[in-house]
Amino acid sequence: MKKWLENIRRVEPYVPGEQPKDTDVIKLNTNENPYPPAPQVLEAAKSMDMNLLKLYPDPAASKLVDALAEAHGVGSAQIFPGVGSDDVLSMIFLTFFNSDKPVLFPDITYSFYSVWASVYGIPYECPALDSDFRIRAEDYYRENGGVVIANPNAPTSIYEGLDFIEDILRHNEDSVVVVDEAYIDFAGGPSAIELLPEYENLIVVRTFSKSRSMAGLRIGYAVAGEELIRALNDVKYSVNSYTLNKPAIELGAAAVKSTEYYEEITRRVVATRERAAKELAELGFECLPSGTNFLFAKHRTVPGERIFKELRDAGIYVRHFDAPRIDDYLRITVGTDEQMDKLTAFLKKYA
Amino acid sequence: MKKWLENIRRVEPYVPGEQPKDTDVIKLNTNENPYPPAPQVLEAAKSMDMNLLKLYPDPAASKLVDALAEAHGVGSAQIFPGVGSDDVLSMIFLTFFNSDKPVLFPDITYSFYSVWASVYGIPYECPALDSDFRIRAEDYYRENGGVVIANPNAPTSIYEGLDFIEDILRHNEDSVVVVDEAYIDFAGGPSAIELLPEYENLIVVRTFSKSRSMAGLRIGYAVAGEELIRALNDVKYSVNSYTLNKPAIELGAAAVKSTEYYEEITRRVVATRERAAKELAELGFECLPSGTNFLFAKHRTVPGERIFKELRDAGIYVRHFDAPRIDDYLRITVGTDEQMDKLTAFLKKYA
Repeated sequence: MKKWLENIRRVEPYVPGEQPKDTDVIKLNTNENPYPPAPQVLEAAKSMDMNLLKLYPDPAASKLVDALAEAHGVGSAQIFPGVGSDDVLSMIFLTFFNSDKPVLFPDITYSFYSVWASVYGIPYECPALDSDFRIRAEDYYRENGGVVIANPNAPTSIYEGLDFIEDILRHNEDSVVVVDEAYIDFAGGPSAIELLPEYENLIVVRTFSKSRSMAGLRIGYAVAGEELIRALNDVKYSVNSYTLNKPAIELGAAAVKSTEYYEEITRRVVATRERAAKELAELGFECLPSGTNFLFAKHRTVPGERIFKELRDAGIYVRHFDAPRIDDYLRITVGTDEQMDKLTAFLKKYA
Repeated sequence: MKKWLENIRRVEPYVPGEQPKDTDVIKLNTNENPYPPAPQVLEAAKSMDMNLLKLYPDPAASKLVDALAEAHGVGSAQIFPGVGSDDVLSMIFLTFFNSDKPVLFPDITYSFYSVWASVYGIPYECPALDSDFRIRAEDYYRENGGVVIANPNAPTSIYEGLDFIEDILRHNEDSVVVVDEAYIDFAGGPSAIELLPEYENLIVVRTFSKSRSMAGLRIGYAVAGEELIRALNDVKYSVNSYTLNKPAIELGAAAVKSTEYYEEITRRVVATRERAAKELAELGFECLPSGTNFLFAKHRTVPGERIFKELRDAGIYVRHFDAPRIDDYLRITVGTDEQMDKLTAFLKKYA
């Protein structure tokens, strides 16, 4: 018997969407942006002095942090950067949720929340979305150890306005409230960052992997009051001093300054989304109203798993969740118009 | 009273060495390599398709992992990559040290070990090095929740042979034993990787930040039996699926294949180290015998803190630890011959 096995942390890990090595597939399964990063990012890559890779990166990633602070009109001490928003959210769970009371998040939401709670031994409860897949604010009025709301929510794609977020904040003055805004740039509505001056228990999380087309660089960040950011940094410096590497810092800072480009490609993704949603409806699908770069869609009669598998066999990858209430849905990333045309052409067989 | 403050994890973070923004300083304080990354790495950087940054990186970093497995003559399922060896070690603490018994590591060693133990609530005890700053193997013969040995040790710079490591392994069949080999390439002796076939509770940790001149890219890895690596991956996929970004994977893989270049710059660092150690001895310093890319040196009469500060005022950064037993020592990174000449020229004033 190997006694050292007894002390191993046992977990059910999150399973990320497939990253097929075959580049011929139409990849609509992990909500990446179909357009390349900004020309300024490609320029910054060319002008990086790779000889400097011999030195440690700036542990505070100040160049990136300062650029983000300026873009959001907040202080640099209000920004916490990480290796993708997953790293940021993981640090948030580890730092803020040390209570015996359960952390609350919806039953249908980003499935990593329950994984982080499990790995760090945090109790949690998951109030059910209503029958329209909307979050019920009143489920979050009770005592808790923290609240996590994805807005827009995933995989439902639904965006709620700031009144809704503020309602939850007003009922949770004793908890840290996390608003995960991975998809906010596609929502067409305001960000909870506007509420920061009034709620110092609010923390808003963002990513460069969606609207900024930089999933491959792994950059995310939190925006909050200085007290929360300081606590996050203390824990971060207790786990890994140097998280963002030099390319992430340099290219990330260039991306923050390329606002016009990203606004333009976001408009294109949103236009494609609206066109695709209309076509899917004509083909017998019901789509939830999307404020994201994906569509959450269900065929009126054909089971989701069947369509998922047949699409996959045809080289079109979408995401299917084998979970209660949503197992007939497909989560379809909004790609280019051409990619969506190939998708809808294939889906005609179910019409 | 802000009640949400009560649930925040309170820690004493690790304080990394200064990263001065002034590039004119002689930077001998964070054990970086004075030579640039391999020409093959710079080539790989030029040929990277930055447009692909829109896609997530391979979550398994297979290109890098396969290259490392081949280089070490082990299977790919025996390699666990991370964002620097700090990320790898942090995951190791979180994954393997879930016992009520204390994890053991020396009182003078890499100061991050106690920080990780604290942040994850792991009990630990620190047997004292002997009066020559050597680890006493017999201190690790007792019951424990895990053992962590840096070899060569830091900041003492002393390397112990494989007999010593195997002695500890033979007395710890019920524990996971971590050997942190950040500096092994400068040691002139064999790696504990040779012992892996016989000890499936052994895990060896390496970094690209020292001998491979790539601190700025943040790459580290563990080598162990498949059972330990699988457990590490399960926890990693519960914290952050995509840790290494595309530049780290691509440039890291190119570095692994540039063995000749790295062997050559390692020889140069070792030659400079031996020359500098001799000169420091002539200037009234005692240096511990170094198997690393740094010297741990103490002046016979002048206090370490004074020399540290006067060097700093002269634009020469070394590291000083304000800790019992070692507060008269300086940890001096081995730079180029030219940098070391400037250092010893300045130190003549204390001769």
